[in-house]
Amino acid sequence: MLDLQEMRKEIDVIDDQIVKLFEKRMSIAEHVAKFKIENNKPVFDRNREEEKLEALGNKTHSAFNCCGIQELYQHIMSISRKRQYQLLQEHEQADTGEFQMVDALRKKDVTVVFQGVEGAYSHAAMRAFFGEEIFSYHVDTWKDAMEEIKKGNAMYAVLPIENSTAGIVQDNYDLLTEYNHVIAGEQIIQCRHMLLGISGTELEDIKRVYSHPQALMQCREFLDSHKEWQCHEFGNTAAAAKKVSEEQDKTQAAIASPYAAEYFGLIPLAEHIYTNPDNSTRFIIVTKEKIYCKDAKKISVSYELPHESGSLYSSLSHFIYNGLNMTKIESRPIAERNWEYRFFVDFEGNLSDSAVQNALRGLKAEAQNLRVHGNY
Amino acid sequence: MLDLQEMRKEIDVIDDQIVKLFEKRMSIAEHVAKFKIENNKPVFDRNREEEKLEALGNKTHSAFNCCGIQELYQHIMSISRKRQYQLLQEHEQADTGEFQMVDALRKKDVTVVFQGVEGAYSHAAMRAFFGEEIFSYHVDTWKDAMEEIKKGNAMYAVLPIENSTAGIVQDNYDLLTEYNHVIAGEQIIQCRHMLLGISGTELEDIKRVYSHPQALMQCREFLDSHKEWQCHEFGNTAAAAKKVSEEQDKTQAAIASPYAAEYFGLIPLAEHIYTNPDNSTRFIIVTKEKIYCKDAKKISVSYELPHESGSLYSSLSHFIYNGLNMTKIESRPIAERNWEYRFFVDFEGNLSDSAVQNALRGLKAEAQNLRVHGNY
Repeated sequence: MLDLQEMRKEIDVIDDQIVKLFEKRMSIAEHVAKFKIENNKPVFDRNREEEKLEALGNKTHSAFNCCGIQELYQHIMSISRKRQYQLLQEHEQADTGEFQMVDALRKKDVTVVFQGVEGAYSHAAMRAFFGEEIFSYHVDTWKDAMEEIKKGNAMYAVLPIENSTAGIVQDNYDLLTEYNHVIAGEQIIQCRHMLLGISGTELEDIKRVYSHPQALMQCREFLDSHKEWQCHEFGNTAAAAKKVSEEQDKTQAAIASPYAAEYFGLIPLAEHIYTNPDNSTRFIIVTKEKIYCKDAKKISVSYELPHESGSLYSSLSHFIYNGLNMTKIESRPIAERNWEYRFFVDFEGNLSDSAVQNALRGLKAEAQNLRVHGNY
Repeated sequence: MLDLQEMRKEIDVIDDQIVKLFEKRMSIAEHVAKFKIENNKPVFDRNREEEKLEALGNKTHSAFNCCGIQELYQHIMSISRKRQYQLLQEHEQADTGEFQMVDALRKKDVTVVFQGVEGAYSHAAMRAFFGEEIFSYHVDTWKDAMEEIKKGNAMYAVLPIENSTAGIVQDNYDLLTEYNHVIAGEQIIQCRHMLLGISGTELEDIKRVYSHPQALMQCREFLDSHKEWQCHEFGNTAAAAKKVSEEQDKTQAAIASPYAAEYFGLIPLAEHIYTNPDNSTRFIIVTKEKIYCKDAKKISVSYELPHESGSLYSSLSHFIYNGLNMTKIESRPIAERNWEYRFFVDFEGNLSDSAVQNALRGLKAEAQNLRVHGNY
């Protein structure tokens, strides 16, 4: 038996040859691309690739190698296509779809809608993102907020999309699919829940605590140390604070933000009551206009996939082969198609980057119903 | 310029050579594996692989080819590792971890706990899976159900994990992480919501409708055609049906299952009121015992990933290279680690299959905190 050193040398010799063959193959693939561009033929030909894979598998001498070479060639052909998409990109105009680049978002004298009431975390997120010089109003539901920007009553809507502890807000992923709006920005807000009451309240006075179910959950350890309190679920933290403020009853307390305390004139009865001190919510700023900022760094897309082994894996290769860092992947069921999914991927980049355009071109050709939800 | 036919012939010649080199490389890799097994060395050596990738990149003549060959070799080395894991597998005892194979689940004279109340969809799922010859009781929360099997008060718990329209039940994914229990089965129940009232109720009598928020949402189109009704959210559909049954008030109706109608003696006032006729919920059957059936076909695992470009993609290769069909991927935030995720993957297979064992061995070596949640 050879020793490890010798075996590795042999492998190095083989690898040198593979590198040369790979470069030669890529050079021919470029000629094929030029031919396809001139003759207006599509880059991706699923049937031809499948025939090729079968032929290659037949040349191997073990079941494992058959599977291995087919996997390998799926990647070689995928890399080849990426190069062909690049050439197509050079040949044609840069394509940012319907999206227009802007220097910066307009944040003054615009109308912004948020879900919930004044004093809610979404209100705080809006203030953090836009500042004070805006017109703003609130609606009851996230869907209402989407409708308001669709009708043109507001330019922007502020919606929670993910909490660092509780995970994604599934409904808002579905609303992104339902509406043809665009994510133009994001704002992360730390959820520093406090126990709030009216002036003069002592912890001993409290009988009932009101808050959003998620906030109650996030303060579970604190609440468990006061088993004598009855916890009541409320639609949002600010509505709970509002109730306590309006009813002026010392037996009632709310769990809500420092922002709500200030807004409703309540007194913090206990601070740092949340289990996870870094608990944060990420809000997205949504608009009807197809715009992105020239310094935007993150892109959100979604697409549907057929029920095929490896299709998810193969779709992700478009990000990887273009050197794009995926930061998130989520799936949501497709309405009316039981147990099929739409995948939402966030990755780093700007719609003007050619790597991004290549990835999107490839995904558009190979996945179903690709949507770009925004670059921000 | 060559014509397409000639170019493809040239590519075929190159590919023949690559196939030969690949098989030769795999054969040497087998010797390396044997050497590693004899000398008790790990298969995966991240540093060596990274050095190798850098050296290979330096041999290419364009930035694109550098990136391409590095991607390609990540796959070649990954395929190579999979073969080495296979050899390790042949060398050692089959390893199903702590899991014991059983011929079939015990479904008679066992104690089963479910969340909710009698008449709930979870109750219906339990009956569909186990039949009638069991002892059963209900608890208030999903966590309580997990506790009951932990304490040994029940052998099985029935929990909803996913709805075909609404998506996953995030809390139950988190409970799978929190508890060291095992998924031993699953049961899909169609959600054929009906509008239920007491005997003699006419649609014109109704003023208030009670149901779970998700059921209200799933019947949105029907409810929108009766704007005069007030909709009230209830913790579950069966509790809504129970209220209507107990209060014997013709101005009240509930949206709940045919099962609840029967259980509470209510009359269907309107059927087929759901928007999606195929709307279904998938329930999991959870137990403390580490068992799987010999004919189990689906495996659920989860693992954490570091924040690295491509780490998700690379982790999925373990399923692909072992020919395992992934049917689902979900992510949940990791508690106390902001914006980091635990990925849940479902794939087809049985813990006794060597392909499954290879995949798990590879994932265990390369991902963090791999958990097998069950084979069912």
